[in-house]
Amino acid sequence: MPVCEIISVGTELLLGEILNTNARFLSLELAALGISVLRQTTVGDNPLRLAQALKDALSRSDIVITSGGLGPTADDITKEVCCQVMGFELIVDEEILTLLEQFFASRGIKMPHSNKKQALVPLGGTVFRNNNGTAPGIACEKDAKCVILLPGPPRELNPMFLESVKPFLSKYTNGVILSHTVRTFGIGESAMAELAADLLNSENPTVAPYAKDGEALLRVTACAQTAAQVETLCAPVLKSLLERLFPYVYGIDVDSLQQKVVELLMEKNLKVALAESCTAGYTAKRLTEIAGASKVFECGIIAYSNEIKIKLLNVSPNTLKEYGAVSEQTAIEMAKGVRVAGGADIGVGITGIAGPTGDGSEKPSGLSFIALVDGDTVRAEKIETGKPLDREYNRYYTASRALNMIRLYAENF
Amino acid sequence: MPVCEIISVGTELLLGEILNTNARFLSLELAALGISVLRQTTVGDNPLRLAQALKDALSRSDIVITSGGLGPTADDITKEVCCQVMGFELIVDEEILTLLEQFFASRGIKMPHSNKKQALVPLGGTVFRNNNGTAPGIACEKDAKCVILLPGPPRELNPMFLESVKPFLSKYTNGVILSHTVRTFGIGESAMAELAADLLNSENPTVAPYAKDGEALLRVTACAQTAAQVETLCAPVLKSLLERLFPYVYGIDVDSLQQKVVELLMEKNLKVALAESCTAGYTAKRLTEIAGASKVFECGIIAYSNEIKIKLLNVSPNTLKEYGAVSEQTAIEMAKGVRVAGGADIGVGITGIAGPTGDGSEKPSGLSFIALVDGDTVRAEKIETGKPLDREYNRYYTASRALNMIRLYAENF
Repeated sequence: MPVCEIISVGTELLLGEILNTNARFLSLELAALGISVLRQTTVGDNPLRLAQALKDALSRSDIVITSGGLGPTADDITKEVCCQVMGFELIVDEEILTLLEQFFASRGIKMPHSNKKQALVPLGGTVFRNNNGTAPGIACEKDAKCVILLPGPPRELNPMFLESVKPFLSKYTNGVILSHTVRTFGIGESAMAELAADLLNSENPTVAPYAKDGEALLRVTACAQTAAQVETLCAPVLKSLLERLFPYVYGIDVDSLQQKVVELLMEKNLKVALAESCTAGYTAKRLTEIAGASKVFECGIIAYSNEIKIKLLNVSPNTLKEYGAVSEQTAIEMAKGVRVAGGADIGVGITGIAGPTGDGSEKPSGLSFIALVDGDTVRAEKIETGKPLDREYNRYYTASRALNMIRLYAENF
Repeated sequence: MPVCEIISVGTELLLGEILNTNARFLSLELAALGISVLRQTTVGDNPLRLAQALKDALSRSDIVITSGGLGPTADDITKEVCCQVMGFELIVDEEILTLLEQFFASRGIKMPHSNKKQALVPLGGTVFRNNNGTAPGIACEKDAKCVILLPGPPRELNPMFLESVKPFLSKYTNGVILSHTVRTFGIGESAMAELAADLLNSENPTVAPYAKDGEALLRVTACAQTAAQVETLCAPVLKSLLERLFPYVYGIDVDSLQQKVVELLMEKNLKVALAESCTAGYTAKRLTEIAGASKVFECGIIAYSNEIKIKLLNVSPNTLKEYGAVSEQTAIEMAKGVRVAGGADIGVGITGIAGPTGDGSEKPSGLSFIALVDGDTVRAEKIETGKPLDREYNRYYTASRALNMIRLYAENF
């Protein structure tokens, strides 16, 4: 399989002014084509450094894709540098020149002189039309190496890649690489990796652990001639991981815990209502990231004071007095209260201390209680994150634990 | 001034699974310190390729900063590779080992054996404590070159850089570089840049516009021998920007719109209650990111169905029938309802269509209405984002508009 490198060109990237979304977009697309990306490099608008980066990349890889530096101004140098490195001559492409003139005419503007350089293309190169801007894309092929130059703005690069570059690259690919992601909740990355230790050394598929937003994931990647063969290679490994990591696995190729929760509630025809104190809408916000969540979630009450807990959630003043707002008892009463208020099948209550400062009691920041009730049963959990200063983490993790509690309930665990 | 390169380590970056936000964060911070970033490189979890990238970077630059690959698993290889390339020996740091054991003990978990390798540090290196995770940061200095290894998760890397690495790097810079950020809401980046056009060419301070999360920002950066001299250089420029960009500026060096809103409400001794439909907790979640928000916010009601709007917010069934749930009238009644339910000074109602699919009516996704009421007055706004498919943006932007509406009210605009 061919290997590829991506070179992003632009001083604004080196200054941190913009995020490099192009490198990610191209990497995702290339992986789907079965082309391995060996390296991503970002250099500024500097001819010598770009030339060096391009030569280095060509010494290691078959295909190099650049983004940026195809504009009309003097610091746009990618095309000139590439032609110099690859030994291509630049000539005016009359068709592109006409398109450029039409592009400006349609906007009622006379084409600036500087834009003419965008009609220069390498003799013997391939030109990709830009339907969303003025800079055409270009491919230069020589000595079994291929350099593809794409414009920097994502709204030009993305459609050009999908419409023109992807079909162009098909001659370089044989075989398919596909990945599956096993997502877990409730187990740490290293504990998960230990349970999967022997699989982490396998070669096809490869199994790689990583951590993301407080969750531990495993990516299973295989390569074969056809997609069906890839799936055949992955299937036993995925099955084994599901067995080893039960009940932590909440899904394979699922986007998020909240997506799984919404799917499960839809499947079981259950509606949940949320009463949130320390998370204060974070759980509801995440649940409603999923389009269609309104089928399973209609009512949330954020009760950020004792008064509101009493008034809107029917929490007993005695409970608050005896156990405090941050207690299992309060969480359970909040869950019961919101279930009734929202007319839902299940109610969830969340109360805790997000930090960084405490609530005046001796309870530590990072402590919270969550509860889930249906008409008959009550579940409750105590959470101690041990990160008193990390308000964002404490809120996010507590919301995740509440989502996972709903998942386990809906899966009858 | 020294030149620097950034090496991001992680196969997940080469597969396009995550965006490289670390490279951007580090580049922005290094630029503010007056350290030029020459190149950003991303390599996978591969010892040979990482070693080569590190050698190449050291041949060009004085400082190399890596992110990622400091985890406990076998594919975390950055520390080992760096020590090999730089000629450092790895030894167990007993203090780090104790911290690691405490970290796991505080979570009630026995430390997995694999985590022990995170206590290995280079003999003669500098260790940066990780207050948000298990991997310490490390600096290796030798032969006038410096390599700094940072953990991959942004929530660990960002605070570690700000708390430990920035002071550490001061010996490599001479003079002081400081930035101020002017934050606006309600004006686009290019319109803002036009109002500041002549200032954008100034050299000390420099003034750079950028856009972030739907807001337009200006960063004013100056360099001088002392901090006081930097402030003297910045002051007239900041004053001029405030005048030009009134009333869009919501703060200088403020973290976020929600921080400004909480500060203003505290100052004015006002309490707000939120009734959210399409944003479904997003506004409350953002407001309560600010520690101490409970002083100005006690009650939020998420009414994700007509029934809940009627039952908990006292919205009239006739209003819903006549104007629909997504209407100015409904937003106003939601605001009134939650103000009463929450016993607050002001009530805010938010209703809209987040997308990507519509609500069954002819109203487009991306349409929403927000309203603010106190005892006497009513304000309402219609929002059309024009991005029917972008659920996340529609929800975030609508919440931002609601926050800005509260800001303008509290500032008596």
